[in-house]
Parts: sequence; structure tokens; C-alpha cells
Amino acid sequence: MWELRSASFWRAIFAEFFATLFYVFFGLGASLRWAPGPLHVLQVALAFGLALATLVQAVGHISGAHVNPAVTFAFLVGSQMSLLRAICYMVAQLLGAVAGAAVLYSVTPSAVRGNLALNTLHPGVSVGQATIVEIFLTLQFVLCIFATYDERRNGRMGSVALAVGFSLTLGHLFGVYWVGPVIGAGLGSLLYDFLLFPRLKSVSERLSILKGTRPSESNGQPEVTGEPVELKTQAL
Amino acid sequence: MWELRSASFWRAIFAEFFATLFYVFFGLGASLRWAPGPLHVLQVALAFGLALATLVQAVGHISGAHVNPAVTFAFLVGSQMSLLRAICYMVAQLLGAVAGAAVLYSVTPSAVRGNLALNTLHPGVSVGQATIVEIFLTLQFVLCIFATYDERRNGRMGSVALAVGFSLTLGHLFGVYWVGPVIGAGLGSLLYDFLLFPRLKSVSERLSILKGTRPSESNGQPEVTGEPVELKTQAL
Amino acid sequence: MWELRSASFWRAIFAEFFATLFYVFFGLGASLRWAPGPLHVLQVALAFGLALATLVQAVGHISGAHVNPAVTFAFLVGSQMSLLRAICYMVAQLLGAVAGAAVLYSVTPSAVRGNLALNTLHPGVSVGQATIVEIFLTLQFVLCIFATYDERRNGRMGSVALAVGFSLTLGHLFGVYWVGPVIGAGLGSLLYDFLLFPRLKSVSERLSILKGTRPSESNGQPEVTGEPVELKTQAL
Amino acid sequence: MWELRSASFWRAIFAEFFATLFYVFFGLGASLRWAPGPLHVLQVALAFGLALATLVQAVGHISGAHVNPAVTFAFLVGSQMSLLRAICYMVAQLLGAVAGAAVLYSVTPSAVRGNLALNTLHPGVSVGQATIVEIFLTLQFVLCIFATYDERRNGRMGSVALAVGFSLTLGHLFGVYWVGPVIGAGLGSLLYDFLLFPRLKSVSERLSILKGTRPSESNGQPEVTGEPVELKTQAL
Repeated sequence: MWELRSASFWRAIFAEFFATLFYVFFGLGASLRWAPGPLHVLQVALAFGLALATLVQAVGHISGAHVNPAVTFAFLVGSQMSLLRAICYMVAQLLGAVAGAAVLYSVTPSAVRGNLALNTLHPGVSVGQATIVEIFLTLQFVLCIFATYDERRNGRMGSVALAVGFSLTLGHLFGVYWVGPVIGAGLGSLLYDFLLFPRLKSVSERLSILKGTRPSESNGQPEVTGEPVELKTQAL
Repeated sequence: MWELRSASFWRAIFAEFFATLFYVFFGLGASLRWAPGPLHVLQVALAFGLALATLVQAVGHISGAHVNPAVTFAFLVGSQMSLLRAICYMVAQLLGAVAGAAVLYSVTPSAVRGNLALNTLHPGVSVGQATIVEIFLTLQFVLCIFATYDERRNGRMGSVALAVGFSLTLGHLFGVYWVGPVIGAGLGSLLYDFLLFPRLKSVSERLSILKGTRPSESNGQPEVTGEPVELKTQAL
Repeated sequence: MWELRSASFWRAIFAEFFATLFYVFFGLGASLRWAPGPLHVLQVALAFGLALATLVQAVGHISGAHVNPAVTFAFLVGSQMSLLRAICYMVAQLLGAVAGAAVLYSVTPSAVRGNLALNTLHPGVSVGQATIVEIFLTLQFVLCIFATYDERRNGRMGSVALAVGFSLTLGHLFGVYWVGPVIGAGLGSLLYDFLLFPRLKSVSERLSILKGTRPSESNGQPEVTGEPVELKTQAL
Repeated sequence: MWELRSASFWRAIFAEFFATLFYVFFGLGASLRWAPGPLHVLQVALAFGLALATLVQAVGHISGAHVNPAVTFAFLVGSQMSLLRAICYMVAQLLGAVAGAAVLYSVTPSAVRGNLALNTLHPGVSVGQATIVEIFLTLQFVLCIFATYDERRNGRMGSVALAVGFSLTLGHLFGVYWVGPVIGAGLGSLLYDFLLFPRLKSVSERLSILKGTRPSESNGQPEVTGEPVELKTQAL
């Protein structure tokens, strides 16, 4: 529970809340029918992708800008963050998403609002098929994030923010989003960590990171150069 | 007032004038109805974003390419530049915007020109709602700029220009721009500097930077490697 | 045959299989007619480009993310990988493409599926003309990959993934894809390696790399910092 | 005339020829009316921009990938290359453009071909107005290239190729291209080199670079790490 006494932990939780609020606000907001005529899928996909890219740029060095519980779950499966931190991230993301939708609801006229751009399934697609598609979409996204945040690669990487944002844009260009990203996230994490680019962590190492008794090197966020001043507080 | 005697100070002022002139010329110019049919919002959003990306690339190392008074205000609130410099930037931006609109006006036929692509409010949106949206749009933009220009991060950042430009594109994809970015800019600056990634500057330090008696490390622009030859002039 | 006993060799083969499966799944999937109305060529081109960019980001440090037999052929012609590795890559890519198309087929309703977005030739274009276009398209793509993966350049490169992905997007914006990329790939390899940015490898050096008795520095993939733990296995 | 005996000089000339051929082939090719319906200006602008980005990535380290005589003229005015090299670049660019158009002409059916996508002036725009627009478009492009290729900046630059390519995309989103880029290129060069980020070169230094008796540091191309093996030949 030492994490709860660190200011950087709470900054990360707040950053996740804040980033998810913004992500929902911008992504959904750009998906609304502000003008008559069909919605252009490229525009919506780019809105979600650029929203995530901007948030990774803005708070990626603070919390990792997971934004999505499936991503946090993937880092948990890869034992790159403690269970406590993962749960706090997910709660913050949930509250942030609700807050973002509420803000958007309050500022949009009802004619524009519709069903707040919630995805509906294409009529010819079964639930099972949609789940398979979702697993693949999340799998590629998690692989891209894991490879991008991998602290063992410090070479010619280009922009972390663009890599992650464009990977998400890809998913939205395909366009069926429904259930089961958790399966894809878990698979992606195992695939990257055990098969494609294996780490040799012992079971006890993994357990102590999950329990939070031993800090992970990455905490699910890309390397920071120049830590902010750590304000260790007793109560907070 | 030592700043007034530095050639790099005047180069920065000129760069802001010049960048704002270009930004208005290109951004508005690409938004005009050159061809019949509806304007594609993605095209306009990309035009503004790429214009800013190009200007950050071209003069970001000279003045920071703020282009917008709200951005300069955010750096002032974060006490990263002197009050004198901030006022000069804002005057230069204002004059640049007028000059850019004038040049565009003089080269476009009246049929194309319309109202020079000025934003009008969506009929169902109230002024209060639009202000809230604007605050959020500016907030994400300022957070992204602050995180990108932060001299404490020198690691895997990718392109400064693309990060800033795409963050602006995101705002334009959403599309309602009206009043009050100053509130969003101020909030963004305080949020980043005091909460998300705090700096420990004393009040007297902040005051002396604002008064210009002590130079800021950043002056509201990303780190430059290889300063231009400083031509200290007496009169200028 | 020492390569067959290296775990990193088999990881690379699996990464090629996996990347081609995803590439076909996402690229074709985004090209299907999910909604009525004409397919937007820009959307399809970006889907293929972002799919490749994501895969280069995710597994480029493991196998090079060639994805396409023509690219592997280009690296073989440039004697940057052994014949054995090249053949295994091509088999993995073929199987991956079949698997990706099969998965896509199983999850799409038949109304959407059509001919799985296979390219058909524009009525006015002859087969000979299409072949010439293809050679040029592959040539620029291979030159871009060779220049990007060139281990002699370690300076200001930006993102490997975006460079490769956008180069592919360019090809798709043009839009005629049919036969003969192998000619273009071979020409591109020779052009870059012998004319534009020559390497002085002796014939015997080249032969020994092709035979696999001497490892190439690059193995057709960008430099990795921080190799994964090499699990040399006897049988596997 | 020592330059004429250097193999890297001739490789640069060939690279310019080749890059211009490809640029014309892809840029024009993607602008043709392959399908009925209006041409999307965003698609054409991205095709030109991605073509240039790909070419800067592929041969930027060999010749600088100027592609356009106006860009070469700007580097000449900034005395960053010899007069001899500039003339050879321009001849190569001219021949490359003719070759690219010829190849494109030979592979496109006449129904698609039209006037090979040559720009025509918007009916309401006068020649004088178009020239002013052109000067501004070239000015921003040259400033962006000069700032990007500036060897005094080696910090956080991101991708050279994307910066240059997106700057060109911006110009094409605006869309009127006609006469006088030479004025804009000259102005841009003087503006950057004497006002915004001045270099202290003496007149004699500049003259000797122009005459080719003293090599420029940059030769109008970004810094290369890892020169290709220099094959000094006597005759060639």
C-alpha cells in the first residue's frame, strides 16, 4: 500500500480520469451529426485516433494514458503494474467516461445528439462474429502499445503518441466495435511478453509486482526522462 | 527591459507576426468554397493543423510559434515568459492576423470569398454551451503544447510540429470555435504546472521571470540546440 | 542450418505469419462495402498504410515486418538475409495471408463480402501497362524501406513505422495493383545497393550471407537496441 | 570542377532525376479521374505530400530530394551549394519531370488521362493574384525545408520526410499553383538566412561556395551519418 502515499500515484490516477473524460468528449463529439449527410467514417476514425495521440502526448509520461480498461488489463496480465494501481486506473477511467459523456450531453442540442454515436451492430453480423473481430482489433492495438512502450527499445522509434493514435485509427476504420476487448487485450499481452519478445521474469517477481510490494520498471507508461519532483505525503 | 536590446527578442516578435499571417492566410484560404458542393470538415481541419505544424517546424525554434494569444497567455500564466514579451507577442499576433486576412481578401474573387469562412454557431447551441466546449478544446491544446515543449522531457518525443499540429486538427474536427479560449488556456497552464507535472518555482522566482529581470529557461519555445549568432545591438 | 536452432529465428517466422494475417484482415476488412455508397479510395489507402505502420511498430524489431514476399525478395537480392530465412518468411507470409482472408470471410456477412475487395483492372488499362505501373509502385516502396532500414543511417529519421506505412498509402492512392511487384522489388534493391548508396560487399561475403553460414548485420529488419533473451534450443 | 570527379556528386544528380520522375508519376497519377465523380482535393494533396515524403525518406540523404527547381534555387540563394551543382540539379529535375509524365502518359487510357491533371486557374482569379498566392505558398515551403535541413538544429526534430511532405500537402490543399515560385523561394531563403536565424558567412565565403572551390557543409541536404563509400573516379 506504499503506492497510496506517493503523489505521483495520485497524479497518474487523476491523469487517467482526465484523459478518459477528454477522449470520450472529443471522440464522441466529433462523431455526432453536426451537419446533414452521411457521417464520414474516416473523419470519425481520425478524431478518435488524434484524440488518443494528443492525450498520450499530454499525459503519457504521467500515467501512460491507457484511457481504456482493456489496455490496463493487458498491462496487468503482463505484470507491469500492481493490482491496486490497475483497479484504481479502471475506476478512474469509468468515472472519466461517464463525466465526459455527461459534459458532452449538456452542451449538445438534442437534434444533434441522437444516441450519442453509440455503435450499433451491422445487421448481417452475429454477436459471435463481432466478438472475434473485436478480439483481433484489440490484439493489434495492445501489441502496438506494448512494442511502443517497451523500455528495452530505445532506438529509432519516432513519436509514441502518433504510433498509438494511428493504431487506434486503424481499428475505427474497420468499424465494428462491440464486446470482448478484454480477451484480445489478454491475448495480446501474453503473445508479446511470452512469445514474440519474451521477458524472463520469475513467478515470484511477477507476483510481487502485482501485489505492489516491488515497483515495476514501467508501471504501464513509457520511460520518463526527468521525473517531476516527488512530493511524498503522509496522508493524502 | 534588457530584452528589448536583444536581437533574438525582435526576431521572435517578427516570427510571431509572420507565423500568424501565414496561419490565417493558409487556414482560412483552404476553408474557402473554391469548388461547389459542401465543404469537407476533415479537409479544413487538416489545413489548419498542417499549417500550424509547418509553422512550428519553420519558426518554433525562434519564437515557439504560439500563433494564438491564448497560447501566449498560457505560457504567461505558467510564468515561462516575461509580461513584456507576452504583450509584444500578442500585438504581433494581432497585426499578423489582420495582415493575413487582408492579403487573402485581396487575392480571392468575391464569389469564393463569402464571409472569409468565419465560424458561425450551430443553430441549436447556446452561447454558454459553446463557451464550455471552447474551454475544453483550448485545455487539451494547451496541455499538449506544455507537455511537448516541457524541457524536462528529452526522450522519445517524435516530432514537436506534428504533435502540436494534430492536436489543433482534433479541435477543428469537433468544430465549434467561439469565445473564451483564454479561460481554457489559463486552466490548462495551471493544471499542467501545479497538478499533473508540478514545478517547484518560488513566488519570487515567478515574479522575476514575469518582470523580465530573470530570463526563463524556455521562453515559451522548445529547446534549441545551436543558437543563432547573438547580435547584441545597442539601439535597434 | 544454425539458424533453425535459434529461437529468435522462429519468433521472426511467427511474427511474419502473424503480421501478414493481420495485414490482410485489416486492410481487406476496411475495404469492404460496410455502408452503401462509393468506397472512398483515401480511406482504403489509409487503412492499408496504417495497418502496415502498426505492424512495423509492433513486430518490426522482431522480423522486420516484411509482410509481402516482394519485400523479402528485395532483401534477398540485396543479400541482407539467408536464402533459408527468405523462403521461410515467404511461406509464413503465404499461410498468414490465407489465414487472414479465412478469418475475415468467416466474420463478414455475404452481402458485405462481395469479392473480398480483390482488385480488378480499370477497363482501359492493358496488362502490360498495369505491370509497368506495378513495377514503379514496388520500386518506390522498396527504396523507401531500404533507406529506412539502412543501418548506416542512425540520425534524424523520425518514425520507421510511419515512413513505411505512408509509402504504402501512396501506392494505394494510385490504385492499380496487379502483377510483377517482384521485378520492381529486385530493381529497387539493386538500385539502392549498387547505385544510390553502394555497399562494398565482396561476392563471397554475399554468398555466405545467402547460404546462412555468416549472419547478416540486419537480417532485413531495423536495428534493435536491447535484444530479447536468446533461448537457444536444441530440438525445437 | 573537382565536384565532377566525385561519385557522390553524380549519385546526387541521378537521385534528383529519379526522384522527380517518381514525384511527377505518382503525384499526377493519383490526380487523374480513375473513377467518375468529383476529384477529392484532400486525396490529391495527400498524394503529392506522401510522394515527396517517401522520396525525401528514400534519397534525401543522397541528394536532399529537392525535386523542384525552386527549392534548388533557394539553396543557391542561401549559398548552400555551388552554381555548378545547382544547374545540374535543375537539368536533372527537368529531364526527370518529362520522363515521369511520359511514363504516366504511356500507361494511362486516354479516357482517364484528360489533360494530365494540369492545374487551371479558378475563373475569378487574376494572374497577378495567383502569383501572389504562389509566392506565399513557396515561401512557407522553403522556410519549412530550410528549418528542417538546418544543420545547427540536431535536437527533437521528428521525421524530416513527414515535415517536408506535410508542408507540401498544405500548399496543395489551398490549390492554386501557377507562376512565380522562384520569387517565393528566393524570398524564403533570404528571410531565413538573414533575418530569422542568421548565419555569419562573409561574402568571400559565399562566393567560394557558389563557385564550388569550397564545399558547403550541407550541399542542400540533411546531415548524413555514415557516408557511403566514396568511389573517387578519375574519368567517369
